[in-house]
Amino acid sequence: MENIKKIAIVGGGPVGALSALFFGKNGWEVELYERRHDIRNSLNDNLSAGKSINLALSERGIESLRHIGLDKVILENAIPMYGRMIHSREGKQTRRKYDVYGRYINSIDRKWLTAKLLNEAEKLSNVKLFFDCKVVDCDFDTGTVWFRRSHDINNLVKTNVDFIIGCDGVYSTVRQSLEKKITVDFEKKYIDSMWCEFSIPALIKNEEIHYAIDPNYLHIWPRKTFMFIALPNTNKTFTCTLFMPKTMFEKIETEHDLLELFEQNFPDLINLIGHNELVKQFFTNPKSPLVTIKCKPHFYKSKCVIIGDASHCMVPFYGQGMNCGFEDVRLLYQLINSNSTNLEKALINYSNTRYVDVVAMCDLALHNWEDMRTSISQGYAIKKIIEDFLYLRFPLLGIVPLYTMISFSNIRYSLALEKWKRQRKILDFLIYMGGIGTFGSIMYFATRIIFKSMKFLTN
Amino acid sequence: MENIKKIAIVGGGPVGALSALFFGKNGWEVELYERRHDIRNSLNDNLSAGKSINLALSERGIESLRHIGLDKVILENAIPMYGRMIHSREGKQTRRKYDVYGRYINSIDRKWLTAKLLNEAEKLSNVKLFFDCKVVDCDFDTGTVWFRRSHDINNLVKTNVDFIIGCDGVYSTVRQSLEKKITVDFEKKYIDSMWCEFSIPALIKNEEIHYAIDPNYLHIWPRKTFMFIALPNTNKTFTCTLFMPKTMFEKIETEHDLLELFEQNFPDLINLIGHNELVKQFFTNPKSPLVTIKCKPHFYKSKCVIIGDASHCMVPFYGQGMNCGFEDVRLLYQLINSNSTNLEKALINYSNTRYVDVVAMCDLALHNWEDMRTSISQGYAIKKIIEDFLYLRFPLLGIVPLYTMISFSNIRYSLALEKWKRQRKILDFLIYMGGIGTFGSIMYFATRIIFKSMKFLTN
Repeated sequence: MENIKKIAIVGGGPVGALSALFFGKNGWEVELYERRHDIRNSLNDNLSAGKSINLALSERGIESLRHIGLDKVILENAIPMYGRMIHSREGKQTRRKYDVYGRYINSIDRKWLTAKLLNEAEKLSNVKLFFDCKVVDCDFDTGTVWFRRSHDINNLVKTNVDFIIGCDGVYSTVRQSLEKKITVDFEKKYIDSMWCEFSIPALIKNEEIHYAIDPNYLHIWPRKTFMFIALPNTNKTFTCTLFMPKTMFEKIETEHDLLELFEQNFPDLINLIGHNELVKQFFTNPKSPLVTIKCKPHFYKSKCVIIGDASHCMVPFYGQGMNCGFEDVRLLYQLINSNSTNLEKALINYSNTRYVDVVAMCDLALHNWEDMRTSISQGYAIKKIIEDFLYLRFPLLGIVPLYTMISFSNIRYSLALEKWKRQRKILDFLIYMGGIGTFGSIMYFATRIIFKSMKFLTN
Repeated sequence: MENIKKIAIVGGGPVGALSALFFGKNGWEVELYERRHDIRNSLNDNLSAGKSINLALSERGIESLRHIGLDKVILENAIPMYGRMIHSREGKQTRRKYDVYGRYINSIDRKWLTAKLLNEAEKLSNVKLFFDCKVVDCDFDTGTVWFRRSHDINNLVKTNVDFIIGCDGVYSTVRQSLEKKITVDFEKKYIDSMWCEFSIPALIKNEEIHYAIDPNYLHIWPRKTFMFIALPNTNKTFTCTLFMPKTMFEKIETEHDLLELFEQNFPDLINLIGHNELVKQFFTNPKSPLVTIKCKPHFYKSKCVIIGDASHCMVPFYGQGMNCGFEDVRLLYQLINSNSTNLEKALINYSNTRYVDVVAMCDLALHNWEDMRTSISQGYAIKKIIEDFLYLRFPLLGIVPLYTMISFSNIRYSLALEKWKRQRKILDFLIYMGGIGTFGSIMYFATRIIFKSMKFLTN
């Protein structure tokens, strides 16, 4: 991209930092603007507690890190989760592996990961990071980005670049500028549930620090209309989230209401979190909504593109939000690189293909909300067993479980969704035929027994 | 509503002005804030030329005006349109009446109507109108509305009220404040066509001013993927709109391109508009997009409600945008009046029922885009004739044409849509049976003729 000299990346979260690395490592002049302070200065304080769902890094995210040679060092700081651990009301724990070949997803701290990526980006001389800079507007045609610095809030400052990448999340300013410039179809839809964060502390036994529950699983307490989940941290604590309908949250006004909810539904968690902490965390931590955002197109001419949550926001139930954002960065970079003389063509191509895929992923994430909170359906379990069996023993059939396609492959989300719909039809047919076979056999043997009895009686 | 003393109406378009009248006439203290200047000071200048699609006032709008006793005086300044006048490429004109009972819709000037409503509102001592006041934010809980006055742009001014009504159109600031306060589902979707305004001047014959074409019809030049329409004004001109895919607009770069388009598709319009004016208007007037906006809920506690385009925006093809907004005002007022001790309950009720109805209307307006620009389908014409015949001759059957339900009745939009879907099934069945009957008769007579011929030959 010879005529592009300088790009502005708006937003310094994981997706923004990764973008700075991709484009910086390939010789672009990069300026990254982040509205908050540099989180690397407060890695150990607890400022973000209660404000972030833990991340589950899987293949798509790892593949992007692989491209810049950071996969290994980052995975060393992650904790493998081999499947779901389902907790019943009675405290029974049931393991459900994610993959018959033992592949796993990786629990990782959002703050640590972002800091790591920022550190790596800062090592590049052509990448400049600016914190406490709130971008307020962009003029794409002139490549102007206006921002305010938090120590000088009254003055608008500007920078001029050739290309703008908006990675500024769900309330993206760059997307708003885009909406003012061109006609952007936009959809924002909340689910009726909200989330609240909790923490399970480490256990101290014989002066040693232990995990209170198995660290190698994503723990779920599914209760049909609501659920509680826990993801392990390297410091042997768990970051937990309660997902629950807004109306249920509103009904909990006193300590008594809260304890009644937990005693009836999650009795084991009262001990794991600790009575006092449970009450404190519930009434202190924010209750946040869960939203799906879809929009198109994702770009303006050869001047601007939005990626990550700025262009698609999904509910967190498939653990794909960040992985999808990381995949955005890689695909965008690859398309720009392979259309090096025509940036606009690359962006048209990116926006058209990516829109179809992220919409499919947003819908799958919503579907998994039902799947996770009801994790107990027998019909589901039987299908899953048959699907896994066919995947493991008859790979030539081409049946691949949906979770495997999404979390352990880089197949396009939209193709995964289509393939899964076809597979479901095949599975339903096989189960139906199996049912007929079983029913037929039973009838056959029953008839034989009846005939034999009749013979016996008439003899 | 004893505890409500003061309301702020944000937006002084037709819907805002009507709201001021409804609430003002019933004793509320009303402050209306409009960001633009008072249009009554520039009624005769041409400032809004090219920027507004003419309005077609029909039953729902009239019913609201009836409630405040303004229907007659306003209809005196409107022009009845009894149906569509379809213009073929060859210049042939075909009348299509809207209603078998001769009911009509009314072409009216947006600016004149707004001015009339503002004049009436201003007569009330408890209504205050503020122009050049751009509302920038609201705090619903404290009832604070912040605005900037155009002569003093640097200072934020505020007012305090008990209740806020947002009538501030498609880019509503009140809706934005609502979105910051609560979780609002929001959908914005453009169609691929845009619009551009034109004007057909009056004809001067024998020193008398005449309409160039029949003033009592809504003129349509349907060309399948695009169309041109014209609505009459009282000064004997027509306000016209070209609706066309964005890609077609983009292809017209020169006078030659434009004339080619018109010569091939609307040869008669070149004379009607005038060659020079056609070119001037096309290249001067803006090309504007067409958008559908849906959102919910429409309110916050007992503190705020959004109505009109602020809460629903539809493409203009059913002529229902303003009528729906006027119906909003009436329904809102009636619900508030009948729940005089519980404003929040009234707003919940309003938002829940209205959302279903405006979504139905938005979808119908989109459907009519196809219907208008293809107005030539034979299948459609036959169905319409049968439908009209059944409506006129067999009223007990309960078949009512969709257009009649929408434009000449006050039946809920959602019910109209449901009823229409049922009717279509019945009509399809009747046409099917009619087809079988006709086919059967033909077969019967053909067989008879063949037998007779055979008899004749064998004799």
